Amino acid sequence: MSIIPKSFKAAVLVETQKPLVLQQIKTPMLATGKILVKMEFSGLCHSQLMEVKGGRGEDKFLPHLLGHEGVGEVVAIGKGVSKVAIGQRVVLGWLKGEGLESGGQTYLNESNTTINSGPVTTFSDYTVVSENRVVLCPKGLPSNVAVLLGCALPTGAGIILNQLQPKPNSSVVIFGLGGIGLSALLALNHFNVKQVIAFDVEEHKLALAKELGATHTYLANEVGLVNFFSNFPDGVDYAVEAAGKNHTIEMAFSLIKRGGGKCIFASHPKNGDKIQLDPFELICGKQIQGSWGGASKPDQDIPIIVDIINKYQIPVEKLLSNEYSLEQINTALDDLAARKIIRALIKLN
Amino acid sequence: MSIIPKSFKAAVLVETQKPLVLQQIKTPMLATGKILVKMEFSGLCHSQLMEVKGGRGEDKFLPHLLGHEGVGEVVAIGKGVSKVAIGQRVVLGWLKGEGLESGGQTYLNESNTTINSGPVTTFSDYTVVSENRVVLCPKGLPSNVAVLLGCALPTGAGIILNQLQPKPNSSVVIFGLGGIGLSALLALNHFNVKQVIAFDVEEHKLALAKELGATHTYLANEVGLVNFFSNFPDGVDYAVEAAGKNHTIEMAFSLIKRGGGKCIFASHPKNGDKIQLDPFELICGKQIQGSWGGASKPDQDIPIIVDIINKYQIPVEKLLSNEYSLEQINTALDDLAARKIIRALIKLN
Repeated sequence: MSIIPKSFKAAVLVETQKPLVLQQIKTPMLATGKILVKMEFSGLCHSQLMEVKGGRGEDKFLPHLLGHEGVGEVVAIGKGVSKVAIGQRVVLGWLKGEGLESGGQTYLNESNTTINSGPVTTFSDYTVVSENRVVLCPKGLPSNVAVLLGCALPTGAGIILNQLQPKPNSSVVIFGLGGIGLSALLALNHFNVKQVIAFDVEEHKLALAKELGATHTYLANEVGLVNFFSNFPDGVDYAVEAAGKNHTIEMAFSLIKRGGGKCIFASHPKNGDKIQLDPFELICGKQIQGSWGGASKPDQDIPIIVDIINKYQIPVEKLLSNEYSLEQINTALDDLAARKIIRALIKLN
Repeated sequence: MSIIPKSFKAAVLVETQKPLVLQQIKTPMLATGKILVKMEFSGLCHSQLMEVKGGRGEDKFLPHLLGHEGVGEVVAIGKGVSKVAIGQRVVLGWLKGEGLESGGQTYLNESNTTINSGPVTTFSDYTVVSENRVVLCPKGLPSNVAVLLGCALPTGAGIILNQLQPKPNSSVVIFGLGGIGLSALLALNHFNVKQVIAFDVEEHKLALAKELGATHTYLANEVGLVNFFSNFPDGVDYAVEAAGKNHTIEMAFSLIKRGGGKCIFASHPKNGDKIQLDPFELICGKQIQGSWGGASKPDQDIPIIVDIINKYQIPVEKLLSNEYSLEQINTALDDLAARKIIRALIKLN
């Protein structure tokens, strides 16, 4: 059984638009519904990049912790926790699941400054998480893959499984090949979709998309759009947008057909930004929806997603291109911003 | 039986942004699937106003006829027509129904200039219409009311009947009290909706909305919005937008609640205009859809709408505020543009 440390290391957002700062955080007493987890891995995605850059508007919680998908081992549980036990390996994610909701957490650092945190954060060697943000980690799945079950997989695969449910003869565009876009692509295997079209600005991601089942790939630029429309003059049935920008949502919307084509976006662009849509396209039956984490219920959907990965022997580890230590987290953020990587993996213990 | 005239009077759009011009049009030979109708009444709505103003972009069909809801008597039928017979009273509308689709129609005026027309136009004493744009007029309904069955009623009521299907405990905003908005309001009676909220910029239309069943009314301005949100802090379940502008679609979208609130707009704003939406509101579960004529199938929906009007004794004649002759059609367009009237009625024969 793991020992509970007196303090642990965490990457703290002290000021937006500045690098994260490593601080030593005192392990707090566990409140009702809280779980102390010794972290193995955290994922790192555009949401954290957006928070660090201040793209979510005024940040009222500074200084605070962040990160919202991870894997670790339960080392202590607070009152009322019944979902998991000490010693079990758990997936941590931002989507609400079963169990107690115990709200945010405050910590003290070594200078006794209060450090805020939400119900789940993952950029630290240990973390305190609300019971409803953990799910038992599926057996047999390596932790460096299971980490994706905290956000990318339930969101991306969830869009396909819960929101689109395409038919084999549907045509589906995946727009933006980060963790969420590729997770959506993987889930299409389950529906035996014959026309899977991938868009990205990076050739190497298009190549990976082909490995993972894309039948057509296009660069997300004007030439790519012309090539797409020469093959699909009326557009496609579905577009899943996961490229993170307003104009990419607008581009994805332009790719669907009138009379029932549906565009679902997982992107959460910068606070205050707005998408511009031609209302006549909506009158003509194009549909657009945002996705809240693929409408996933983690306790139900994670086992389904793992079954799909196993059944189709999907090389899901390819979604995580680089591994970084907690000390290298700012490099990981920079590499993600520069599109050098798909999704960073932070190794913690 | 009516005599077929050699020619008839029509209001022609010769040039956009100019008044319609009355011309004498030669009665053409009827092609397969065409019906010659002696018109009694035409409605006049914002769509025609938009066409006259050139708000639909470049108009490639000038000079042409216009108008898309009306009532008249069948005076001749082309080959293949089986849906209606000579002497029957029919509703003319732009929505495709059962019967032959015979496309557009060209006419010659007295100077032998070609005048274009779509499958249905109504601003003339006689008109040639495609079989699939007429429905037998329900018995007992006065023609000056039945005219609304061509567009306003199937669109407005159709949004409620076919697209929203609210529950008694739903809260529904009707935004914009023209023919379509009021038609939507009328249809809410059928669902026994308890919270019916009407918005308009004109006090007299709000007063009419109250007569027709609105439980709350607000001016569509900042004060009205503040008052609305003090009563409905989380917003409403549904908003039906029928005010015709981009910013009114955006306002209606602001009134619905997160997590399932739905805004449906019937407005078709100026060509090229775009609506601006905060993508995060869509991620949080707000929904927006355009409506193509209330998704109505005229042959099925018109009898249903007439049943509702009769069952709830709805004073539907109040939707048509003024009657004009064909000679006064430009005045009618001006009065509609100035919001003096709800929907003009053009008396033709």
